[in-house]
Amino acid sequence: MLTLTVALAERSYPIHIGTGLIARAELIVAHLAQPRVAVVTNPVVGELYLESLSNALQKAGVAVVSVILPDGESHKTWETLNIVFDRLLEQRCERKTTLIALGGGVIGDVTGFAAAVYLRGVPFIQVPTTLLAQVDSSVGGKTGINHPLGKNMIGAFHQPRLVLADIDTLQSLPDRELAAGLAEVIKYGLIRDVAFMSWLENNMDQLVARNAQALAYAVRRSCELKAQIVSEDEREADVRALLNLGHTFGHAIEAGLGFGTWLHGEAVAAGSVLAARMSRRMGLINDRDVARAIELFKRAGLPTEAPDLGVARYLDLMGMDKKVEQGRLRLVLLEQIGKAFVTSQFPQEALEEVLASAPRATISQSAPSQHR
Amino acid sequence: MLTLTVALAERSYPIHIGTGLIARAELIVAHLAQPRVAVVTNPVVGELYLESLSNALQKAGVAVVSVILPDGESHKTWETLNIVFDRLLEQRCERKTTLIALGGGVIGDVTGFAAAVYLRGVPFIQVPTTLLAQVDSSVGGKTGINHPLGKNMIGAFHQPRLVLADIDTLQSLPDRELAAGLAEVIKYGLIRDVAFMSWLENNMDQLVARNAQALAYAVRRSCELKAQIVSEDEREADVRALLNLGHTFGHAIEAGLGFGTWLHGEAVAAGSVLAARMSRRMGLINDRDVARAIELFKRAGLPTEAPDLGVARYLDLMGMDKKVEQGRLRLVLLEQIGKAFVTSQFPQEALEEVLASAPRATISQSAPSQHR
Repeated sequence: MLTLTVALAERSYPIHIGTGLIARAELIVAHLAQPRVAVVTNPVVGELYLESLSNALQKAGVAVVSVILPDGESHKTWETLNIVFDRLLEQRCERKTTLIALGGGVIGDVTGFAAAVYLRGVPFIQVPTTLLAQVDSSVGGKTGINHPLGKNMIGAFHQPRLVLADIDTLQSLPDRELAAGLAEVIKYGLIRDVAFMSWLENNMDQLVARNAQALAYAVRRSCELKAQIVSEDEREADVRALLNLGHTFGHAIEAGLGFGTWLHGEAVAAGSVLAARMSRRMGLINDRDVARAIELFKRAGLPTEAPDLGVARYLDLMGMDKKVEQGRLRLVLLEQIGKAFVTSQFPQEALEEVLASAPRATISQSAPSQHR
Repeated sequence: MLTLTVALAERSYPIHIGTGLIARAELIVAHLAQPRVAVVTNPVVGELYLESLSNALQKAGVAVVSVILPDGESHKTWETLNIVFDRLLEQRCERKTTLIALGGGVIGDVTGFAAAVYLRGVPFIQVPTTLLAQVDSSVGGKTGINHPLGKNMIGAFHQPRLVLADIDTLQSLPDRELAAGLAEVIKYGLIRDVAFMSWLENNMDQLVARNAQALAYAVRRSCELKAQIVSEDEREADVRALLNLGHTFGHAIEAGLGFGTWLHGEAVAAGSVLAARMSRRMGLINDRDVARAIELFKRAGLPTEAPDLGVARYLDLMGMDKKVEQGRLRLVLLEQIGKAFVTSQFPQEALEEVLASAPRATISQSAPSQHR
């Protein structure tokens, strides 16, 4: 096991990364304000890991309430959140009761938001069980739910007390979910660390084959990079926006196809390629750089062509982005591989041209269940 | 106009108290991050004050979106919150768009919570138009909505950038609403300031007659006392709990009768009398002290006898309180007039005896509309 610390003044918290962590209740107990937790999960993840987590906690003297939520991005709604509130109130969970999110990004976001607003805020712990959640949504304190008019529109910044990233859980992921997580891993290389980009190019086969050591390193380096960025800019005033490479395009893809059709990571991969093409179109990077990004996403099993929604629809959906300021869209672009920046200074025609001329995916995929 | 500052490190904010403030757009403009606001109000308050606020802002170059919510405590729900989100998203309100709450406590709590979670947090300004909102909910950053199983169970701490307490708006309040506000004013005297208690005893007739100078002083002193307490303890770890004198009993009354049957302030008055009786029963204060509290609430036009819900129902409803810790109820009690404390150390029989033997209100009142 190795431990990173996300440094945020009085709200700093550790991320433990390793194998066999779910059964190590002492790691969790050290962070509880009272010997009582509510574990929030979904039927698929619950079936795999709830019993071992609950048993370990109960043996350590902790009372466990469990909350099973419906599976999938389409359930990241107020209705699902209310299932949590109903159960917490029925069970009279208190301000010092800790919520534990056991699952992927949806469970983490919903549970974190529930913890942010239940009784105006209770502690929570993340036990992310997907690669995406381990490298992305479990670090940084972003929580929230979707709104029919946009993804993650309602939420809060609420930092966990602890993140337990158990690498063993990645063995149960469907291939498509693993690939979606790798999209975010590649993103860290693209925006901030060309050496990590090279490491990924050298180790992509091991990652796709689920070599535990390679996965642990990828999770570790991704969390380090994200933790650095979040520590520099907790409230997304500035550098944190770089984490959204491919996300403005990606959110438009997700919303345009209907949430849950493409996985978030798939949309981020295709969106990052659009961002790379836009950077190329503006003369910031060259054709080789674009090809290098496309190649790595492809090796991870990810789509690199965006679906054909039409330019007008793309622009409309991108206009709903949280980064919009004074009505002006801001994009995360690449000035080189390993270095991204945010700008609202770009020619509108260039954006429209990139959206109109990029190769297009002709089929849409339907989402598989989260764990195999 | 006089100005207090609620001191909270980097999130300190001013409270302006005076007459004619709603039309003074420059007071608001000084705190905007972009020249765009969304004013949230209800039909009754909107009819009275929305036009003058909007016109003043528009003359100052500020774009105004208005959001009209249904009136009353029974609408302090997720559905109402969603009306705000729908409108903000349709109008593409951004992270720097400021929400302005124009109304009483319900509007303030719902708007503040919407501001806390829309796009994970946008700025907001309070323009409280009831006495209760001016002396209570506009100070301290508590925001939230009700849940069928309890009041204010879902919410956030989110500080306003500015509070404008325009005393003129109190002239349009129904008598019952004015009295409900006075319940919280009296509470400040009881918990923290015996000199203010005496001032209230000397000036209650002027307050009930709506003398502007007397009202401005009562608002000012109440805000000062609340601001002191909130500055000492923003997250309600400790001394802030004193503000809940009468509230654990009061919430049980409100929930037991159905929210909106009694006004919050009415329930706080009757609840504070129960807290005084409990303090007397434990030998902390004497009969004269209890009579003094009852007399002042009566002169303000408030109920001093609680409805007969039965002891078991009271205990059950009080058990849902957010102050419950390790399953143990905590009560705010008086050690003298002007000095309160929080304790979980009390004989259960004493509580049951007080609930069983206190004089009972035999009629329930229905809620009037907010402004006359």
